[in-house]
Amino acid sequence: MASRAEDEAMRHAIALAAFGLGTTSPNPVMGCVILDAQERVVGEGFHAYAGGPHAEIVALAHAGERAKNGTAVVTLESCDSVGRTGPCTRALIQAGIRRVVIAVSDPNPLAGHGAATLRDAGIEVEQGVREEEAAAGNVAWLTAVRRGWPYVTWRVASTLDGRTAAVDNSSEWITSEAARIDVHQLRGEADAIIIGVGTVLADNPRLTVRNVRDGSLAIRQSLRVVVDGDGETPDDARVRDGLADTWIATAAEVGTGPDGLVDLRALLRGLYRRGVRAALLEGGPTLAAGFLSAGLVDRVIGYMAPKLLGAGRPSLSGKELSNGVGVGILREPIDLEFTEITLVGPDIRYTAVPRYPARPSEPSLTARLTPQVPKKADISAEERASSDIMRGVPIRGGSTKEKGED
Amino acid sequence: MASRAEDEAMRHAIALAAFGLGTTSPNPVMGCVILDAQERVVGEGFHAYAGGPHAEIVALAHAGERAKNGTAVVTLESCDSVGRTGPCTRALIQAGIRRVVIAVSDPNPLAGHGAATLRDAGIEVEQGVREEEAAAGNVAWLTAVRRGWPYVTWRVASTLDGRTAAVDNSSEWITSEAARIDVHQLRGEADAIIIGVGTVLADNPRLTVRNVRDGSLAIRQSLRVVVDGDGETPDDARVRDGLADTWIATAAEVGTGPDGLVDLRALLRGLYRRGVRAALLEGGPTLAAGFLSAGLVDRVIGYMAPKLLGAGRPSLSGKELSNGVGVGILREPIDLEFTEITLVGPDIRYTAVPRYPARPSEPSLTARLTPQVPKKADISAEERASSDIMRGVPIRGGSTKEKGED
Repeated sequence: MASRAEDEAMRHAIALAAFGLGTTSPNPVMGCVILDAQERVVGEGFHAYAGGPHAEIVALAHAGERAKNGTAVVTLESCDSVGRTGPCTRALIQAGIRRVVIAVSDPNPLAGHGAATLRDAGIEVEQGVREEEAAAGNVAWLTAVRRGWPYVTWRVASTLDGRTAAVDNSSEWITSEAARIDVHQLRGEADAIIIGVGTVLADNPRLTVRNVRDGSLAIRQSLRVVVDGDGETPDDARVRDGLADTWIATAAEVGTGPDGLVDLRALLRGLYRRGVRAALLEGGPTLAAGFLSAGLVDRVIGYMAPKLLGAGRPSLSGKELSNGVGVGILREPIDLEFTEITLVGPDIRYTAVPRYPARPSEPSLTARLTPQVPKKADISAEERASSDIMRGVPIRGGSTKEKGED
Repeated sequence: MASRAEDEAMRHAIALAAFGLGTTSPNPVMGCVILDAQERVVGEGFHAYAGGPHAEIVALAHAGERAKNGTAVVTLESCDSVGRTGPCTRALIQAGIRRVVIAVSDPNPLAGHGAATLRDAGIEVEQGVREEEAAAGNVAWLTAVRRGWPYVTWRVASTLDGRTAAVDNSSEWITSEAARIDVHQLRGEADAIIIGVGTVLADNPRLTVRNVRDGSLAIRQSLRVVVDGDGETPDDARVRDGLADTWIATAAEVGTGPDGLVDLRALLRGLYRRGVRAALLEGGPTLAAGFLSAGLVDRVIGYMAPKLLGAGRPSLSGKELSNGVGVGILREPIDLEFTEITLVGPDIRYTAVPRYPARPSEPSLTARLTPQVPKKADISAEERASSDIMRGVPIRGGSTKEKGED
């Protein structure tokens, strides 16, 4: 049992971890709080960027001598591998920590057995404290690592009548400035932004992460990925402007699926190998249909502007596919579940999680790691969705959240 | 100034009035609370149905002798006309009421000058207490009476990708049972339900107000209106089943607008003459485009199901019109403002109010009654919208509400 002070410290550590969202991949976000022997907070830290110090190292440095005989409260099992920063288990042992409280066990087989190493050194280890809460904060990383391909969020913006652009293809101002700022935040939290070549040809987007008001670029840019079977991305396309890394993913490089198009599973595995854990799919309607019909979208974040156009490009179009992928969508509607609804400026933003039908075969990595998936009844809908998707069982019922309950 | 007891009584009277929503047209909803000389509640009532006793009559009967020297608190100025139920002013005077507290003044010129009559009889009259709150509860009736045509709510249901039906035209189960129950509630609060002949031909709906689970009909049915320029509604269409009144509104009967289609303004004025104050427009996409492009929709209530279809009938389609009405929608998107967002079962329900551009000419009745429109800063967005639309000025800014604040 975690003490009350430890439970409070874990809550704080989870909040600290979230500061790292968007900058730690391929590492997870992680937070750490050090309590001294009297359970007073004497150190705290979070993992800010890949290559930078881990949360425990920061927190131990903060605590200094006060860590001796104290407790380390960590959102994720401490690493035991000799990576760029050295194993955190060694640092905890050397600091004289007496007890370690862990939220989520590390599902990454390369990270090793941190808890076991700590126990072998005589440290008391408590696991599973605020596990669901910590897992929800790391959902993209946990999902990606457990199954071996990135967590995919489909971002879609439309009018009340489901249009993403007017008939003249102008789509820049469908949603409000507030929603566009929000989208750049989403981009900032993703390691890669994926679009289809059709969107490049129609809209020529920059796909950079930037300040919507003054246009200034964020220091860290996400990988720009163009799914471009035949390599049609023009030489002067904005995605080739050099302001961020870009991968033009052709069928020749990635391979093709049974439908003759770029193999989206192979694409995602390729992104995983490049360190991508969270990917943002930004369209267009045909590519989105491909991802959805293959069951590769983990989450939909939609912005709905209070506008009516009466005509224009639809947000999702299976019909444009000539080889049956689109037809599949038509015959079997995809059911989702809303997990969050809020207003962003004048627009509605909703988050919805697909309920894919059962998938009998999943990668073996998944099966092996299944026991680490949280099982408690109050697990968040989002985390439940991703874990259930992973295990290949349909999701039944479940809670919905609204603004304020989140 | 209203006393604290009077203010409380008005709040209660407004709640009482709402019991009449859907059954009082062409009358407004109205509530009344009687306080005795010691400001104790001694009587209460509401107007339940046209032809039934007015709120004051019910409340006075409840109070009996205790009304003498008491105060009548009413949500709407008491009628002074000798209608089916006799003037309420006379009843208040005869009961020995000393003071009358009114929320909203009656904008109906036929209702006469109730407050003046009461004052002439020596009764103290206070007006404008909780005026905005009471006006919001009567928004459809007030809007309709002030301008001479019904308050129109467009009800639309769609998937996340803006489809109202699959390609095979199956639309029955787009939204959940909870949303369908909600729609029947909306129908029950409307005096008329309007659809286009295209919807009759495609879906053959019944348009009755009924219990979704067992199919039993509500006692009171709304008028079913089919906008059917050339009179193509089949003889065996369900709307002709005799279970509710039906008006097949042809161009020959109603007249045509400059676009050659049924004149929708004339249609609405005709409905007003038939006693319709609140109308529910249920589609399809072409008729909705016609109403919207003519600026005749006062409110949109949309149900969005967490489903993706990828193809199918859009919720709004200006393109299907051959005479320019649709083109108008394409060139000028209609801006709206969300005023309410909630979950109904698994579906999102949103309420949005169109912000039409300024309309320079409005009926003279409107201009004459403008001073009675509430002006306070905290007037609800919905009421502000309808009153601003009435006055022909664009709406700027404004508050949005979410579930729980409503």
